[in-house]
Amino acid sequence: MACARFITLKAIHDTSTLTHVLRPRIRSSVIIRAFSALMSPPSKAVFYENHGPPDSVTKIIELPPVEIKANDVCVKMLASPINPSDINRIEGVYPVRPPLPAVGGYEGVGEVHSIGSAVQGLSPGDLVMASPPSPGTWQTHVVKDKSFWHKFDRGTPVEYAATVTINPLTALRMMEDYMDLKSGDAIVQNGATSMVGQCVIQLAKLRGIHTINIIRDRSGSDEAKEKLKKLGADQVYTESQLDVKNVKSLLGNVPEPALGFNCVGGNAASLVLKFLRQGGTMVTYGGMAKKPVTVSTSSFIFKELSLKGFWLQKWLSSGKTEACREMLDYLLDLIREGKLKYDMELTPFSEFHTALDKALGKHGSQPKQVIKF
Amino acid sequence: MACARFITLKAIHDTSTLTHVLRPRIRSSVIIRAFSALMSPPSKAVFYENHGPPDSVTKIIELPPVEIKANDVCVKMLASPINPSDINRIEGVYPVRPPLPAVGGYEGVGEVHSIGSAVQGLSPGDLVMASPPSPGTWQTHVVKDKSFWHKFDRGTPVEYAATVTINPLTALRMMEDYMDLKSGDAIVQNGATSMVGQCVIQLAKLRGIHTINIIRDRSGSDEAKEKLKKLGADQVYTESQLDVKNVKSLLGNVPEPALGFNCVGGNAASLVLKFLRQGGTMVTYGGMAKKPVTVSTSSFIFKELSLKGFWLQKWLSSGKTEACREMLDYLLDLIREGKLKYDMELTPFSEFHTALDKALGKHGSQPKQVIKF
Repeated sequence: MACARFITLKAIHDTSTLTHVLRPRIRSSVIIRAFSALMSPPSKAVFYENHGPPDSVTKIIELPPVEIKANDVCVKMLASPINPSDINRIEGVYPVRPPLPAVGGYEGVGEVHSIGSAVQGLSPGDLVMASPPSPGTWQTHVVKDKSFWHKFDRGTPVEYAATVTINPLTALRMMEDYMDLKSGDAIVQNGATSMVGQCVIQLAKLRGIHTINIIRDRSGSDEAKEKLKKLGADQVYTESQLDVKNVKSLLGNVPEPALGFNCVGGNAASLVLKFLRQGGTMVTYGGMAKKPVTVSTSSFIFKELSLKGFWLQKWLSSGKTEACREMLDYLLDLIREGKLKYDMELTPFSEFHTALDKALGKHGSQPKQVIKF
Repeated sequence: MACARFITLKAIHDTSTLTHVLRPRIRSSVIIRAFSALMSPPSKAVFYENHGPPDSVTKIIELPPVEIKANDVCVKMLASPINPSDINRIEGVYPVRPPLPAVGGYEGVGEVHSIGSAVQGLSPGDLVMASPPSPGTWQTHVVKDKSFWHKFDRGTPVEYAATVTINPLTALRMMEDYMDLKSGDAIVQNGATSMVGQCVIQLAKLRGIHTINIIRDRSGSDEAKEKLKKLGADQVYTESQLDVKNVKSLLGNVPEPALGFNCVGGNAASLVLKFLRQGGTMVTYGGMAKKPVTVSTSSFIFKELSLKGFWLQKWLSSGKTEACREMLDYLLDLIREGKLKYDMELTPFSEFHTALDKALGKHGSQPKQVIKF
């Protein structure tokens, strides 16, 4: 192992505010340690000390090496996405956040760099993903207990492995958890060009489930429609196309959907509700328009609609690690077979803030931003 | 039986537009009948030929006698309430309505006047309620198949028996159908002075369940609060009292409610949502404010709230007549024991339109209007 290092008292002192959060295994009581302790390389990290606008509160700094304890695995990160929840954590508006100061990111993959003395089943060079995902993936080297890492097949494109846990898994779970969907049934969703939206289309298609997809009005919407149809979408509408008296008259041979997914809010959520059949359920998993969901009394009483929410982090934290990994392997199989794909843009870590600006929507609609280390 | 009558062709002809709806047992093919056919008395009825404002489209007319067939029971009506759904049916905005022309009303009680030759278990003089309720109770004599009538104890105040099926049963079902409430749990509701609201308070109290009650700001709100507290309400707030940063800070020793009932919409519904605990459910059963329910994205995702609707008519039409009657008997027992009471105002049938104006809200907040025949 090449990463054993001697940590000087000064180096610890300089980053003392970080130690309890970012390097829980370094404590003042053990700062004078044996030369032989196995240490990580220093780690370049997207770091923030206060909550606020992510483009102003984050900076890239070098964190000192940390000890790799007996059950730890040090991973050289390869790729990590910028998800909306990452942005909300930095803004301080996400209900579950790491204590400050913190390193950004939550999902990602890397290559095992070095392992603690008691680690079995993982070796340097193995590809692993953060599973369950956890805070601090936006850095070059992450040290965590072996239980946090899940090995995956080398034949998997790393940018897919880096992004499979949050969005594709959300799509998969939402299709399982609310209704016993059968081949021939239909789903309606807004935000259909999102990564979850693209996954819903493909996962539904694989099961013979129809999808009715709603996208924003924007330049290039015709291309977006074509793209979604190529993924397997049955129907794609812009919001303005649905400004009709009875949206269901558009359904043609597609049955009225029993399940709807909303990641937008406002009018786009109302459109999902309009498509739902008697007794249908709308699941909210995002609020891109930053507008609430508005529902008429009669939708509840006479149309018997149910409205619920989905929060992947809650699901992930409910001790379902093994079930989760099985589902991830299923999704990764689909990815390797070419049955599940979605748009991404890879950006070198050195240009992190460019990718962040895109993720923040400063340059209009952009594909999912993935940092390559 | 005293009501056998000879129906002339002219009498039938004069009311021909009514026969298929109001008197389905009179058809043109049988208008020349034997003198011995058992007939009802003529019936004074609240009648409407078109949908529209109830105070202008309804009129009181006399309907001709109808035949009492072998399994029919002719009931001399004693009391029937004016419920919001009755008004919505006349307006034409209720999704399930009798065909036009129609007689108003849906719930009510009466005394058996005469029975068909094959009817057993009911005798003239018995008190019965329309169960399941069905259209056409706002008239002096109703003829329906025996299966539509449920006998009840003479010791029951008729105005309670006349009103127990729609509102108290709604309260009972809503407390059963969404959550396994236990003693010590809490419920939050708006529209707490409504008949359902008053029943929720008392039924909850009987089970050791706390209630947090929201009422409108209005003159007399202090008296309304005192009244609800006497019924067993733990806490009663006007909407303006809840214009605070954290409504839950008001709860004191009352636990956060897992279940909420909304019959108002708009701000009053948002207040119910604010009180609900993580993972709670709000059930909408009315929309008195004629304003939609507005819900933030985070309420769905992070607070994991579920929103549903309750529609008694759907429940009643699902073939649960026996289960329904058992529950009504339970409620009638509570009423006779003085454990369930609610405000009503009795008005003679001759002053129907005065009661209707009150039910339409023309004279401000009024107790439930019940017609006495």
